[in-house]
Amino acid sequence: MKLYNLPPGLNPRRVRIFLAEKGIDIPTVDIDMTKGENHTAEFLAMNPLGTLPVLALDDGAILTESIAICRYLEELHPTPSLFGETPLERAQIEMWNRRVELHLMRNQVDNFVHTNAFWTGRREQVEAYGQLAKDAAEDVMGWLNEELGGREFIAGDRYSVADISTQCSILLGKNTGTPIPPGLPNLSRWWDMVSARPTARA
Amino acid sequence: MKLYNLPPGLNPRRVRIFLAEKGIDIPTVDIDMTKGENHTAEFLAMNPLGTLPVLALDDGAILTESIAICRYLEELHPTPSLFGETPLERAQIEMWNRRVELHLMRNQVDNFVHTNAFWTGRREQVEAYGQLAKDAAEDVMGWLNEELGGREFIAGDRYSVADISTQCSILLGKNTGTPIPPGLPNLSRWWDMVSARPTARA
Repeated sequence: MKLYNLPPGLNPRRVRIFLAEKGIDIPTVDIDMTKGENHTAEFLAMNPLGTLPVLALDDGAILTESIAICRYLEELHPTPSLFGETPLERAQIEMWNRRVELHLMRNQVDNFVHTNAFWTGRREQVEAYGQLAKDAAEDVMGWLNEELGGREFIAGDRYSVADISTQCSILLGKNTGTPIPPGLPNLSRWWDMVSARPTARA
Repeated sequence: MKLYNLPPGLNPRRVRIFLAEKGIDIPTVDIDMTKGENHTAEFLAMNPLGTLPVLALDDGAILTESIAICRYLEELHPTPSLFGETPLERAQIEMWNRRVELHLMRNQVDNFVHTNAFWTGRREQVEAYGQLAKDAAEDVMGWLNEELGGREFIAGDRYSVADISTQCSILLGKNTGTPIPPGLPNLSRWWDMVSARPTARA
């Protein structure tokens, strides 16, 4: 197997933290998006969308999309479980991972893409939409703060892939204009806890 | 179990088609969003996001997010498999379901939400962003048309949850301003095929 990685990217970081939590070591190739390395003919033959990460299997099969890659690796290396151990726990982790992706991550990413100078000239930006995304991300962080008043982790009593998605999203927001707003003690407590895990800098 | 349903909604339709493909019958409660029935205290106690569908289990546990609900039901009713039968097939179906959700569905939904009169006054709309979303949805349909030149279904040689997501997204687009563009014979052939399944009107 070979993992194509974008060191600063939110999604490759999800997979790197997942691998570190599992103790799996996969040879990695760093791709530099600013040099267009994700749009060469060779790269697009693997992933026509030009997104990272990409997992190339030994038989030539290609997997893209972080969570698809993580699910595949969870099946090969079931312990420690990061997607859940019973049908209900798996469904609850999937629910929380999706809630975070659809309501927090997309808004933090969209605020970044539509308002940050990094993307000016690279993508068409709609500032007013980026602002809406910021407001929505802040609302969602307020909601997560309430939820985390009742349990330790995003999807329940143990660390899961839903925490990985949330911490990677919040790290992006911290660096790009949607940090955790003041006055959210439960979310801040959770953030300090997950950031202190040895895998957080994977 | 009880399924809270929004009859015209894209996501509840995904779950209804999934149930029909499995031959599962679950008592259903229709919720009328235009009357605010998804924002009553009782509903928000089940799902603070106010989204549909919601699956209430007999022990009081609540599942939201269509794909989390479908995954749970797949575990209880494994046949016919709609999420795949081997680790690699499951990962490929997950990859394609996510590619469709992230690149087609979100753009078709965003075009609807940001440009359609139905949402005026209900949500803040940014017309310029809605237009970008339309352009992106059309690009993605062009790409799917190429992909479908090489295989019968979205994720491989058989019908899966990735087809369900795609057909529900394309149905929304057809009704709201992002229909399949002309000149995409493979995508149109696939659309005619999935629309003709007896479950398509579930």
